[in-house]
Amino acid sequence: DSNLKIFTLNSNPALAKEIADVVGVDLGKCSVTRFSDGEIQINIEESIRGSDVYVIQSTSGPVNEHLMELLIMIDALKRASAKTINIVIPYYGYARQDRKARAREPITAKLVANLLETAGSTRVITLDLHAPQIQGFFDIPIDHLMGVPILGEYFLGKNLEDIVIVSPDHGGVTRTRKLADKLKAPIAIIDKRRPKPNVVEVMNIVGNIEGKTAILIDDIIDTAGTITLAANALVENGAKEVYACCTHPVLSGPAIDRIQNSKIKELVVTNSILLPEEKRIDKLVELSVAPLIGEAIIRVHERQSVSLLFD
Amino acid sequence: DSNLKIFTLNSNPALAKEIADVVGVDLGKCSVTRFSDGEIQINIEESIRGSDVYVIQSTSGPVNEHLMELLIMIDALKRASAKTINIVIPYYGYARQDRKARAREPITAKLVANLLETAGSTRVITLDLHAPQIQGFFDIPIDHLMGVPILGEYFLGKNLEDIVIVSPDHGGVTRTRKLADKLKAPIAIIDKRRPKPNVVEVMNIVGNIEGKTAILIDDIIDTAGTITLAANALVENGAKEVYACCTHPVLSGPAIDRIQNSKIKELVVTNSILLPEEKRIDKLVELSVAPLIGEAIIRVHERQSVSLLFD
Ligand SMILES: Nc1ncnc2c1ncn2[C@@H]1O[C@H](COP(=O)(O)O)[C@@H](O)[C@H]1O
Ligand SMILES: Nc1ncnc2c1ncn2[C@@H]1O[C@H](COP(=O)(O)O)[C@@H](O)[C@H]1O
Repeated sequence: DSNLKIFTLNSNPALAKEIADVVGVDLGKCSVTRFSDGEIQINIEESIRGSDVYVIQSTSGPVNEHLMELLIMIDALKRASAKTINIVIPYYGYARQDRKARAREPITAKLVANLLETAGSTRVITLDLHAPQIQGFFDIPIDHLMGVPILGEYFLGKNLEDIVIVSPDHGGVTRTRKLADKLKAPIAIIDKRRPKPNVVEVMNIVGNIEGKTAILIDDIIDTAGTITLAANALVENGAKEVYACCTHPVLSGPAIDRIQNSKIKELVVTNSILLPEEKRIDKLVELSVAPLIGEAIIRVHERQSVSLLFD
Repeated sequence: DSNLKIFTLNSNPALAKEIADVVGVDLGKCSVTRFSDGEIQINIEESIRGSDVYVIQSTSGPVNEHLMELLIMIDALKRASAKTINIVIPYYGYARQDRKARAREPITAKLVANLLETAGSTRVITLDLHAPQIQGFFDIPIDHLMGVPILGEYFLGKNLEDIVIVSPDHGGVTRTRKLADKLKAPIAIIDKRRPKPNVVEVMNIVGNIEGKTAILIDDIIDTAGTITLAANALVENGAKEVYACCTHPVLSGPAIDRIQNSKIKELVVTNSILLPEEKRIDKLVELSVAPLIGEAIIRVHERQSVSLLFD
């Protein structure tokens, strides 16, 4: 379909290429560079007049650069008479700033939604938002894809025995339940609490993990503090071995060192965020979200339901 | 006036401090840092409920970082019930992307205006926009200050004799005329043209510069190619000496080397953009825009005309 065009910006061109292959089109011709002073320069090198355009860009780090690339691209597409501007954001940055937890905090996840709409996007396709409520920050259609089926398929293929799916904190229990359903396994929860202020946290484990293969799941692993403490607590409390998985491997600061030095046997992630070579350590396994996102693009373009993807 | 608060972000805290001193208030308490993954974290550490807030931030390089700091700050101020959110942008980045010069170009200067309004700013105070038409990109009040009087005062104080004010290209003649009026001097124009495609440009000089002290003026000096070629052409064509001045010293890439190696005797700039130590070369003179901006803030706050500042 010559009316469907896929463009990539700089956050994850390898994933974009894979998605274009799934959809069966070539990536659109476009260069996204910098002027001498660091300002973003975008040249769209083919006509997109009347086209349905899909732009692939994670707002992963450097988040402000990647977000501005996306906003300027949307502006350029709008002014070049694209029919629809569908932005595909495999990793939606600033998602943890999604509420006022303290006085005078910004709600940057909502600001970003407003900026994307102001620039001119007409639809959003994204994956595992930190909070599903962020969907409601948009006034344009949004398709919210799930990473759990991809992670689940991988673990099904490993034929692990006597497993338990573990949430590293209270916030992630719903996600943990979903993976447990897929793997027909029980769940457990790491129930951190601080008995008194200024006293070290107690890592209490709710559920039976004794002698079992534990699979920790989270949406984002950033500095990896939570997940590695959880893994070590599981082993200390009698788990046989510990796997960990997440959709979005932010892996900033001390993350890689912590994972290397932890009891985690294998860390399973997706390619929603492009990992530089130095983060591709031996115990890391990367799964592709390109088939999922490619299929979503095909369905959106053919006006079919995207939610069927989760059956 | 306890209702007037001035905050600074990270682009130019020294200028913000000077402006606050002119206005006679302390800078508001606020920290603008980064989370481990590079996302911006803003903590406003005093109540601003019901206040008229002025935020000082140039969108100089790193432009995307500084712009996102400003947008997130505006969001936080809006949610914290500021009465008015006045953004003071001494240097407005992306101003050169102000029209579609080629097919499918973005108009990023307009996009930025839309983003600032969407975030919630209620007024803009800025200085020497690359094109005055950018004022029309905003649907909120904008005060557009001029750098020429500051540059002019400096040169008046030097008592130079037999001067000519020179525009380095066709685009800057109006600005050149303004400085010439202030200094009661004639003007000249560097009239670059390319006789045939792929033939070197001819630097033709329109106006009399023979034996005179030339003062080149531009709004932005970025890579300094235009200004240094112009200076050298002036000397080759008989100018006695050449000064150069601009409001916004972007000075990216080869700029400092070019200026050092050029015939420019002195480069006069303002502090609209914070210069790192290595760019503060001996022939550079920096003038402060703090008195001008501080006075503009006082007048806006007291509901007086800002245009009187240019009498
Ligand atoms: N990029 C970030 N890195 C670390 N913490 C963040 C980041 N963005 C927001 N936060 C904080 O994380 C908290 C929300 O995380 P959560 O409780 O997991 O939803 C908020 O209190 C934020 O202040
Ligand atoms: N940051 C930048 N650095 C260099 N050139 C730019 C920049 N932004 C825009 N431009 C180009 O500069 C031209 C406009 O400059 P001007 O003719 O001086 O108004 C446009 O053709 C832009 O493509």
